[in-house]
Amino acid sequence: MKICETALISEQFASSQDRYSWFLQKNNSLDEKGRLAGHKSLLSCDNSDRDTRFRRTETDFSNLFARDLLPAKNGEEATIQFLLEVVEILTNYVRKTFDRSTKVLDFHHPHQLLEGMEGFNLELSDQPESLEQILVDCRDTLKYGVRTGHPRFFNQLSTGLDIIGLAGEWLTSTANTNMFTYEIAPVFVLMEQLTLKKMREMIGWPDGEGDGLFSPGGAISNMYSVMIARYKYFPEVKTKGMSAAPRLVLFTSEHSHYSIKKAGAALGFGTENVILLSTDERGRVIPADLEAKILDAKQKGYVPLFVNATAGSTVYGAFDPIHEIADICEKYNLWLHVDGAWGGGLLMSRKHRHKLSGVERANSVTWNPHKMMGVPLQCSAILVREKGIMGGCNSMCAGYLFQPDKQYDVTYDTGDKAIQCGRHVDIFKFWLMWKAKGTIGFEQHIDKCLDLSQYLYNKIKNREGYQMVQNTYRQEKLHRVAPKIKPQGNKVNFFRMVVSNPAATQSDIDFLIDEIERLGQDL
Amino acid sequence: MKICETALISEQFASSQDRYSWFLQKNNSLDEKGRLAGHKSLLSCDNSDRDTRFRRTETDFSNLFARDLLPAKNGEEATIQFLLEVVEILTNYVRKTFDRSTKVLDFHHPHQLLEGMEGFNLELSDQPESLEQILVDCRDTLKYGVRTGHPRFFNQLSTGLDIIGLAGEWLTSTANTNMFTYEIAPVFVLMEQLTLKKMREMIGWPDGEGDGLFSPGGAISNMYSVMIARYKYFPEVKTKGMSAAPRLVLFTSEHSHYSIKKAGAALGFGTENVILLSTDERGRVIPADLEAKILDAKQKGYVPLFVNATAGSTVYGAFDPIHEIADICEKYNLWLHVDGAWGGGLLMSRKHRHKLSGVERANSVTWNPHKMMGVPLQCSAILVREKGIMGGCNSMCAGYLFQPDKQYDVTYDTGDKAIQCGRHVDIFKFWLMWKAKGTIGFEQHIDKCLDLSQYLYNKIKNREGYQMVQNTYRQEKLHRVAPKIKPQGNKVNFFRMVVSNPAATQSDIDFLIDEIERLGQDL
Repeated sequence: MKICETALISEQFASSQDRYSWFLQKNNSLDEKGRLAGHKSLLSCDNSDRDTRFRRTETDFSNLFARDLLPAKNGEEATIQFLLEVVEILTNYVRKTFDRSTKVLDFHHPHQLLEGMEGFNLELSDQPESLEQILVDCRDTLKYGVRTGHPRFFNQLSTGLDIIGLAGEWLTSTANTNMFTYEIAPVFVLMEQLTLKKMREMIGWPDGEGDGLFSPGGAISNMYSVMIARYKYFPEVKTKGMSAAPRLVLFTSEHSHYSIKKAGAALGFGTENVILLSTDERGRVIPADLEAKILDAKQKGYVPLFVNATAGSTVYGAFDPIHEIADICEKYNLWLHVDGAWGGGLLMSRKHRHKLSGVERANSVTWNPHKMMGVPLQCSAILVREKGIMGGCNSMCAGYLFQPDKQYDVTYDTGDKAIQCGRHVDIFKFWLMWKAKGTIGFEQHIDKCLDLSQYLYNKIKNREGYQMVQNTYRQEKLHRVAPKIKPQGNKVNFFRMVVSNPAATQSDIDFLIDEIERLGQDL
Repeated sequence: MKICETALISEQFASSQDRYSWFLQKNNSLDEKGRLAGHKSLLSCDNSDRDTRFRRTETDFSNLFARDLLPAKNGEEATIQFLLEVVEILTNYVRKTFDRSTKVLDFHHPHQLLEGMEGFNLELSDQPESLEQILVDCRDTLKYGVRTGHPRFFNQLSTGLDIIGLAGEWLTSTANTNMFTYEIAPVFVLMEQLTLKKMREMIGWPDGEGDGLFSPGGAISNMYSVMIARYKYFPEVKTKGMSAAPRLVLFTSEHSHYSIKKAGAALGFGTENVILLSTDERGRVIPADLEAKILDAKQKGYVPLFVNATAGSTVYGAFDPIHEIADICEKYNLWLHVDGAWGGGLLMSRKHRHKLSGVERANSVTWNPHKMMGVPLQCSAILVREKGIMGGCNSMCAGYLFQPDKQYDVTYDTGDKAIQCGRHVDIFKFWLMWKAKGTIGFEQHIDKCLDLSQYLYNKIKNREGYQMVQNTYRQEKLHRVAPKIKPQGNKVNFFRMVVSNPAATQSDIDFLIDEIERLGQDL
């Protein structure tokens, strides 16, 4: 099943997949212009007290240093001017990012950047640089980076540059606080609580009850799910270690994200005890294979613990059949986790949420708003149906932080249910985007991405020179064209297309297809 | 040993520790003014093409929505104006944060904020809000939050608001990319590599060689150290799980951070196999106790694996004697980790780095620039002496991401040595601060913090009504005053003072002491 993600093959240059990352360079006429020296601005007209303090003035940053900024005495003016200068760099970057004539990436090899590009020197030194040089460094950093918000950037599951999300991140870093207690992040802690509840409602858990946290990414969220499952069935492992449990096994699709295996390795299960499930031609787990492998494990004396169903696999975008997997989990009393890091966003769409049908039967769900929902990185949630179990699993009762005699309701302190101590504020940008778009705004974005994916699929399906990976029969021929086989089961090299970028339109899809062909002809 | 962190007791109100978080409220005359409606600004004078696009103009945000911003057609002007409006909110916040007459926190209980404060409604809804309301939401979010950069904010190990770091974060979120491959973050990947090398040089490893990553916080960094130690001695655990190893034990100070225990629980060792070491009156591990407990464990048939030495403990700021611990680790062939999450910053100071003497003998080090070095959250490094071992420990060879036939040197791809897949860019703000301050700038900051700590210590030492926790003999009396004992070994309730805020001065320390007394008199 192809969802928002269409794997396709270009026979012409199956061996040069990587080109798609930078072929867009060619279609570029603009270049980074206006180095610092040349564009001191002078805006001085309005005289209200408020605005004078926001106004950019001509400031000579060549004689200013970090030590001249706040909290330095009289540092206020320099601070505001410096920040406004940075903001001009950033707003110019934003403007150009959405301009299709801008390069996605001006690629340079590591050794080139390390040697230094026109005065862009990455080395750190003992002595401070002037603020003028710091501003140049900021410009250069953006210049040699990847414009992930560009309308023609189709790599990665996280694409796009949401302006509200960006504003949210700017505010988050200005507030510079930590999620572990209500005391230190009162507003953000409540926002997290309300947003997680809303997400649990979308999943379909009664009254949105349950538990959850934002974690530093889908891999960590998946790791949480395995830890919590183990705690549910074998709580004594927390104190006594894995030797207190029988040999536990985990099940996940051969196409699932590698973080399940990483969790198996890290948490002491061992990767050999992460059993991979076979998939059908669309990359979906075959339920009968799960049941057979559970029985096989039991026969060997192992104890099946946990099944991961993927909702939106990393390469094919496949959705495992959750209901059928849930039936098996209930039959054998296993923890069901749904890894919806990529596909979770479909829950916001009335039209497409059926692809996750059965997710309400899961014990835990990973859902990364920083993927298909376009929230800036990092924003990943682990959601758990049973309330309180995260605290049970992870609490160490660190008294100095989570003091029970505080003068407010300490059940709002979240730190002791995390494996982290300090925890970055990932919620605000997401909360702000939800406020600004409404649930219907997210729904429209998801629907648009899936429409575009369908558009691409239709264009490619019957076009000469392309073939869908899912129904490739002529792989023999491809093998000859693509001598360096890339690993995706028994498939050869191919393009994985990801459509999650809010800036992409049908014309960008057309451009992409034409460009693949144009470049392919050079080979 | 007191380092930058001075634990002290105020007998007068030992039971009201939490007050110190908001007692500064009283000293406030300003209030958040200028709601959105009243301050549309009008800056329209300069006519250069460049500047017109940065100029703030009178924009009616009440009829604009997120959907009107880029990538919307003709969304550029609204986008720039919206971002400039946000920046004005943020720069006002920055300005007021450093103003001592501003409150640190305008505290409200969870139920108050949840009920809604003067139109600040945290609930999410189906319909979008106007950009005008979004700007109000931004203002209110800051209004009810904690000003962690305030000169009189002394809570938490992460304090202060570094302007260069802030600019770095704004740029990072604008670039919105991911650390897992060179392809997607060429500049940031190289900055990380160079900065980690520099940090390893400061540790004292030959030529700065070794391995490392920035992780989402000290707890995760410490978890890495345990995983890597296990992989070093029992690599088969990666594939076969903990059942392939004997019963392994870890050693750490009774005063160490709880993340070592959390790692023990998560990774399948069990908290009972995390052996706590006794400390002296200053909170430092007693090496003889370590050796005795190693021998005891061996006698019981357990296998000692790992010792954590803390460089800057969370409550006392104690530094364990690394050389003596390293001698024992060498003798018994154990992995030595130094948790310098808090105290690692002292390596930047020629005057104070001796407190970590012996750190160069560690196998791994946690060092959080987001603590004493004042880098915005999150910025934590795990540094490892043996090159390549992180990859060995964590690699799952995810072919779709880390393709060996890429057209650049793929040894720069870092994703496969992390437990994360997507990884937030934590390096840029730190790199930029290092550029802007130079090594000597960090050194000056560290030296100033330790001077202030000494100043506080001297003032408190002989002052009536205060007592250092380290040499408290009259605890009986305190017990009567503090009926709710807080858990820190056998000590009663006390103030933990943290000095890491670059904005704090001697006068702020004076203010703090006076204010404690003034408030204490009301009790």
